[in-house]
Amino acid sequence: MNQKKIIKQSFQVNFDFNLIFTSKLFETDNNILVDLLSSNSTSKTKAIVVVDTGVIDSHPQLKEDIDNYFKQYNDSITLEGSVLEIPGGEQSKNDETFIQSILENINTFGIDRHSYVIAIGGGAVLDAVGFAAAIAHRGVRLIRIPTTVLSQNDSGIGVKNGINYFGKKNFAGSFAVPFAVINDDSFLSTLHERDWRSGISEAIKVALIKDYSFFEWIESKVSDLNNRDKDAMNELIYRCADLHMKHIQNSGDAFEQGSSRPLDFGHWAAHKLEQLSNFEVRHGEAVAIGIALDSTYSYLKGYLSKPELVRVLDCIIGLGFNISYHQMNEQIIKGLEEFREHLGGKLTIMLLKSLGTGFEVHEMDKNIVLESINYISSYHSKKIAI
Amino acid sequence: MNQKKIIKQSFQVNFDFNLIFTSKLFETDNNILVDLLSSNSTSKTKAIVVVDTGVIDSHPQLKEDIDNYFKQYNDSITLEGSVLEIPGGEQSKNDETFIQSILENINTFGIDRHSYVIAIGGGAVLDAVGFAAAIAHRGVRLIRIPTTVLSQNDSGIGVKNGINYFGKKNFAGSFAVPFAVINDDSFLSTLHERDWRSGISEAIKVALIKDYSFFEWIESKVSDLNNRDKDAMNELIYRCADLHMKHIQNSGDAFEQGSSRPLDFGHWAAHKLEQLSNFEVRHGEAVAIGIALDSTYSYLKGYLSKPELVRVLDCIIGLGFNISYHQMNEQIIKGLEEFREHLGGKLTIMLLKSLGTGFEVHEMDKNIVLESINYISSYHSKKIAI
Ligand SMILES: NC(=O)c1ccc[n+]([C@@H]2O[C@H](COP(=O)([O-])OP(=O)(O)OC[C@H]3O[C@@H](n4cnc5c(N)ncnc54)[C@H](O)[C@@H]3O)[C@@H](O)[C@H]2O)c1
Ligand SMILES: NC(=O)c1ccc[n+]([C@@H]2O[C@H](COP(=O)([O-])OP(=O)(O)OC[C@H]3O[C@@H](n4cnc5c(N)ncnc54)[C@H](O)[C@@H]3O)[C@@H](O)[C@H]2O)c1
Ligand SMILES: [Zn+2]
Ligand SMILES: [Zn+2]
Repeated sequence: MNQKKIIKQSFQVNFDFNLIFTSKLFETDNNILVDLLSSNSTSKTKAIVVVDTGVIDSHPQLKEDIDNYFKQYNDSITLEGSVLEIPGGEQSKNDETFIQSILENINTFGIDRHSYVIAIGGGAVLDAVGFAAAIAHRGVRLIRIPTTVLSQNDSGIGVKNGINYFGKKNFAGSFAVPFAVINDDSFLSTLHERDWRSGISEAIKVALIKDYSFFEWIESKVSDLNNRDKDAMNELIYRCADLHMKHIQNSGDAFEQGSSRPLDFGHWAAHKLEQLSNFEVRHGEAVAIGIALDSTYSYLKGYLSKPELVRVLDCIIGLGFNISYHQMNEQIIKGLEEFREHLGGKLTIMLLKSLGTGFEVHEMDKNIVLESINYISSYHSKKIAI
Repeated sequence: MNQKKIIKQSFQVNFDFNLIFTSKLFETDNNILVDLLSSNSTSKTKAIVVVDTGVIDSHPQLKEDIDNYFKQYNDSITLEGSVLEIPGGEQSKNDETFIQSILENINTFGIDRHSYVIAIGGGAVLDAVGFAAAIAHRGVRLIRIPTTVLSQNDSGIGVKNGINYFGKKNFAGSFAVPFAVINDDSFLSTLHERDWRSGISEAIKVALIKDYSFFEWIESKVSDLNNRDKDAMNELIYRCADLHMKHIQNSGDAFEQGSSRPLDFGHWAAHKLEQLSNFEVRHGEAVAIGIALDSTYSYLKGYLSKPELVRVLDCIIGLGFNISYHQMNEQIIKGLEEFREHLGGKLTIMLLKSLGTGFEVHEMDKNIVLESINYISSYHSKKIAI
């Protein structure tokens, strides 16, 4: 009975896509989108468009621009139906009826695996639309047009999506590679201050674990970034996106089959803080504090020097991030086990051995985590007092 | 403005799994499952089990066997909760509440990406469970235990899943590679006659497009298969599964990003017939007639010789398949466009140039399709009259 026959299956799948940087994508003389949509086809291609209401509110002319754009290129591309709006932020990921309405449009307008769903919005809307596009016909082509800093430099350029279920963040989702991503910097001007700042933490994160010179550059641009300098932000997004994409390319584990997720430096505490604050604390804000925490822990364990730690904390504080929240207490420790559970297998946490170089450990000393929490909170108070 | 920066992303993902053949998987001295579940882990692994009610009805001792099995190996593996039953056949794919209840069990029992969902049943139940497992935590480990001929030699060993939505078959789904598949031949003895026969058509299909000697072998085993000879069926399943898996391995397009799907010989008409008959005609039965149709078309177009066509039709009829249905009329033609739409892009249809060798065309002559329908229907009547 245990004498068994086995057939072994083994194959590779290749994935590729372009991240394109532009400005004013829907001005009629910008042919990036029309070229992209018609690149793979000899006949007319169809697309539906889904937009974050937060984006529409700040860019009231956008729907008309989109309509005009498609009219202009009517020979080769068709906009099916009218632009579908879904609310920005976690709402879009919490309420299944939005997924349902995207699927309905895909069905009604006959969007197939060679047609397009174009999603315009913050990371949350991109996640919701991405999920619907990934499950319809086992995956129709998705073009992401991220409109926040975080989505342009991190979530929107990755290869996964997620929706909330059973009250759990990203309980459902899939790995799904977009057909293309277009970062249009003209969206960024209307971001609220918190959303402008929030995504900068992902750049600090990836700089700290992979690229010292990028960290130095961020330090040098703190006041430009605070003054909403467009060039500084464009460069930050470009370099951060590039590091993220290279990581996915070279990790050998783009679909996270293992237990390690190096790009999640600072994220175990961040996820827990988001949850403890009922998502009052934004993802990027939570990541900033998670970075502060794990950098302090690296210092207290003797991996990072004190001057190095000071540079990390000062950079984060200098950018206007709050690194002290009342929810930062012993409750945070539970985030460790939840982080392990999410990926399964062995706990794997990224720490810093120097600025620009991360390394992985498989356990954390809870007392030193608590000490780190106190350390950053009193560091913050002292800074503010000055 | 069109002077644009681009970052190119490109990466590979490796997938592998084993298809294991066994008998009486849940006898306590069969250690295949326990070895598999504990192979990747140093600590105790958790699993939930979902079973097709049609299987439970025919194997009433199965639930107890499963319980005893997990008790016996309690040191290394845990069965979480009790076995979840979901109805066999399309019901499981039509009604979202089943997906919901699988997701609930995954959530309640803390099944993570390194824990297991074990699905036991026909192709429909495997599809429904597979979909839920694929979206939970962006994919938890799925072990498929197919219990029908079709699922053991075709659907259960593939890399996708699907559920019905908007009344459309497989409207939603995903590409998702199982952790392992176990074919246990002891399930096959209880299949209804139609389900025993149905999956044989997939073997004929793959033999005709890829492996002449396998087709000859099937011809020689018609009466054994009709007499439900176990050894003949085991060999048929093994060879068919092997050809399917090698195809996926070597196609270079396991996730169907292109417009061609060579394993879907005979399927454009089959899908339409299933739908026109309100799924009264089973998938494998519809495939048998789809093969008859496209083989006849190949003959009428001059690709296949008459003696070759006769062998195909006689083999199919000899196995007891019906190749004439009143739904086989000009309505079927619509299946061509729907087939093209499902994959998108260019219509791509497999035909035969000889027994064992398929080739692709990009259009079909509608009049000759209609002629083929008439041809097989009168061929069938004559055969029956003899
Ligand atoms: N899939 C992934 O890999 C991944 C990775 C990280 C984060 N995420 C997800 O991303 C989400 C967070 O994304 P986010 O930080 O982009 O925030 P968000 O999507 O929650 O958007 C924040 C707010 O900004 C508004 N907004 C968006 N663009 C705007 C613009 N140009 N002008 C004015 N307002 C605008 C939105 O309407 C919303 O109210 C979370 O749901 C998180 O889980 C996903
Ligand atoms: N995912 C894929 O790649 C793929 C490919 C082809 C087909 N499919 C799907 O597979 C499904 C058809 O699968 P199927 O042919 O296995 O039929 P099925 O799953 O519909 O099952 C047929 C019947 O047999 C019963 N049954 C199952 N095992 C039994 C056993 N051992 N003894 C007695 N009864 C048993 C079931 O309860 C059901 O009533 C369709 O939904 C089709 O879309 C999927
Ligand atoms: Zn993040
Ligand atoms: Zn089939």
